[in-house]
Amino acid sequence: MDRIKPRTLSGFMELLPQRQVQFDRMVEILRKTYALYGFTPLDTPAIEASEVLLAKGGGETEKQIYRFTKGDTDLSLRFDLTVPLAKYVALHSGELTFPFRRFQIGKVYRGERAQRGRFREFYQADIDVIGDGSLDIVNEAEIPSIIYQTFTALGLKRFQIRLNNRKVLNGLFALLGLEAQSADVMRTIDKLEKIGPEKVKELLVNDFAVPAETAGQLLELLSTDQPMEALAALKGKNELFDRGVEELSTVVQYLSAFGVPEDHYKVDLTIARGLDYYTGTVYETAMLDHPEIGSICSGGRYDNLAEYYTNKQLPGVGISIGLTRLFFVLEDQKYLNDDLLTAPADVLVLPMTEDLSPAITLATRFRAAGLRTQLYTERKKFKQKIGYADKLGIPYVVFLGEDEIQAGLAAVKDLSTGEQLTQSVDEAIARIRSGLAARNAGAPIRDRD
Amino acid sequence: MDRIKPRTLSGFMELLPQRQVQFDRMVEILRKTYALYGFTPLDTPAIEASEVLLAKGGGETEKQIYRFTKGDTDLSLRFDLTVPLAKYVALHSGELTFPFRRFQIGKVYRGERAQRGRFREFYQADIDVIGDGSLDIVNEAEIPSIIYQTFTALGLKRFQIRLNNRKVLNGLFALLGLEAQSADVMRTIDKLEKIGPEKVKELLVNDFAVPAETAGQLLELLSTDQPMEALAALKGKNELFDRGVEELSTVVQYLSAFGVPEDHYKVDLTIARGLDYYTGTVYETAMLDHPEIGSICSGGRYDNLAEYYTNKQLPGVGISIGLTRLFFVLEDQKYLNDDLLTAPADVLVLPMTEDLSPAITLATRFRAAGLRTQLYTERKKFKQKIGYADKLGIPYVVFLGEDEIQAGLAAVKDLSTGEQLTQSVDEAIARIRSGLAARNAGAPIRDRD
Repeated sequence: MDRIKPRTLSGFMELLPQRQVQFDRMVEILRKTYALYGFTPLDTPAIEASEVLLAKGGGETEKQIYRFTKGDTDLSLRFDLTVPLAKYVALHSGELTFPFRRFQIGKVYRGERAQRGRFREFYQADIDVIGDGSLDIVNEAEIPSIIYQTFTALGLKRFQIRLNNRKVLNGLFALLGLEAQSADVMRTIDKLEKIGPEKVKELLVNDFAVPAETAGQLLELLSTDQPMEALAALKGKNELFDRGVEELSTVVQYLSAFGVPEDHYKVDLTIARGLDYYTGTVYETAMLDHPEIGSICSGGRYDNLAEYYTNKQLPGVGISIGLTRLFFVLEDQKYLNDDLLTAPADVLVLPMTEDLSPAITLATRFRAAGLRTQLYTERKKFKQKIGYADKLGIPYVVFLGEDEIQAGLAAVKDLSTGEQLTQSVDEAIARIRSGLAARNAGAPIRDRD
Repeated sequence: MDRIKPRTLSGFMELLPQRQVQFDRMVEILRKTYALYGFTPLDTPAIEASEVLLAKGGGETEKQIYRFTKGDTDLSLRFDLTVPLAKYVALHSGELTFPFRRFQIGKVYRGERAQRGRFREFYQADIDVIGDGSLDIVNEAEIPSIIYQTFTALGLKRFQIRLNNRKVLNGLFALLGLEAQSADVMRTIDKLEKIGPEKVKELLVNDFAVPAETAGQLLELLSTDQPMEALAALKGKNELFDRGVEELSTVVQYLSAFGVPEDHYKVDLTIARGLDYYTGTVYETAMLDHPEIGSICSGGRYDNLAEYYTNKQLPGVGISIGLTRLFFVLEDQKYLNDDLLTAPADVLVLPMTEDLSPAITLATRFRAAGLRTQLYTERKKFKQKIGYADKLGIPYVVFLGEDEIQAGLAAVKDLSTGEQLTQSVDEAIARIRSGLAARNAGAPIRDRD
């Protein structure tokens, strides 16, 4: 037979079983944390009509989209979870209750140039709160607490949430007479971390006709250690700016009630998050020991989720985690906690008799008690049977021979300690359960304090 | 602005929040049940190289495939989870431990003609056990117990697992001198339920040159109430047949040890499951009150999972549930248990003071206690705020006014009974928890006994 070489496309993450269990455990924690904040799960199709998905059109993303026809229909794979959300809310607005809080964890597709750590198919984990006409500022203050709880539940410790407000930035540009160049100024400021303040000032002055004094004033403000005080000093000159400062103050004021420790967030006036979409608070999240990775959770407040589909005004606030890339980084940087159980089973039952019924009955009892149990019945040598449990990291092996069956007992071996006890089924279940509790304690990420 | 009409493609399931929660609850139960049997979760890409995905080529499916190019690459969306499994096992066989037991729950794509209850994007929930060179028959006996546990955990009661063995069928055809017409005979037998034994006999005799007496003998055997006895009477004449009968006997013998009640399975000699792939036990699962739906969980034993990719012999046994279609049927036939909580939150906190900090602190405490909590801060009338909880089915509302804050208490209302109590936070948490336990008891499917 002519054989085809099996392969997985480059840019597509495909994990081995142990890693998959670790990935799934992270997804499970995200689902639980998002649910704690009152978000409902959503699942939209991966394929949409191109006309619908590309309603907003254009830009960098369009070239990356997987677009094709089937029959007469022009189809595209979703490239994020925000556009499908906008479609969903516009389409079903009559059946939804606002504010509408949803989370979605799903795959999206972008045909980017393949590159280490870049993926063409990847999971995003999004939450959004959508208001009908208006949405209270408290929602913007709640988001950092969700980011904090999420990463803390995953086990990450050394991270920092960075906040800014787009009204502050836009107000500031107006205040400094830079309204005409605001887009260019924003883009240049975005390079601060990469090229430093000297270079940025040079660009602002030479390329975008910003007066040297203004550029200096702007850069000094953006890099201050006391941003709230510096902003307060400028109040009363521009309405938008004043509103932005008030929003930012409100958000910061409520953070401690929301349980976010002070060393886990800071106001960072250099954060802009793109040009058009966001209109209020914006968020980024940095891994303190890996700034080179960039933000691992970003988002912000917007005024119009679905203006391309409906004349309903739908303001909202949301954040997104690029989960596949995050997982790649965590593995790459040795953050994954490999001590947690990743075996497909908690117990391997090895029948030592010809008639398998007693072993099957025992496995059935273990399963009824909630233990993940595998029955091993392949005709192999004893050493190979034990080797199977060993290779998979199955923590307990149960031998069931004639003697044990007669006595109504089971020989249970803890493979990590080598301790083997002949016990009643109930004793075995209790012992295995307590062993598992110890093995499963701990978070999927291991970070230094 | 020119607006695009938002729509979801036909043949693509998109659920409203309440239904999505019900769907997700079913997925969660499947994951848990599969894990109890020692299956590890897997997640492969939705896109594969066409050359790889279509290695086996041809047939009905090929026309339905979503196939397209991106750059120079010929790509296809997966149309089932079996081909990606074959690729995965062939590609990673050196890194896997056999028998390899995996489950996968994921979306697959088939561009079928749109039709009520037929989907182009749908979830399959698969399990497979793959052996390296050989695989013990006990694995074939374990599958019905997994089917039984899965549907029982979902709440379904009136279902029946039907078993057959392909060696029995093929042996029988040889025994009756029908080897040359075996494919045609199999296809005709498949129509038994639809057109009845008279018509089937007619077709066998007239179209496929089966002697009338042989056709009668075959039909009598296939429709007997005592299949194992009828098969036993034919033993000793054909080796393949004898092996099949022995396998079938072994499978049936172990079913009670595996905990499958007798009224939930039967040997049904008319079950064939296609022509080529399966080589041993085959399974179908019928809803007793809805035979028109067809099998809701099917599969079987095969000898060669990945012969198109590798010369390694990989025998296995697996089953698949078409989850999206099943969910559609359950909703359509009013099987979904709408009493279970589907609200996005357990508690809605309504602050009654200007300063929101005490309400935020309370919400933070509830969340720390594991209660799914939403803070409602929109500026609406009191009636609308209560209406929000009501519409979403949020069971508890907490009012936090100046008096409660001073006293360190909270006013907690159970919306289903109307009972409102002013209690300490710990009392409130305990009360809400016990109320939730009662509301969440029960399975997602409600079936009559």
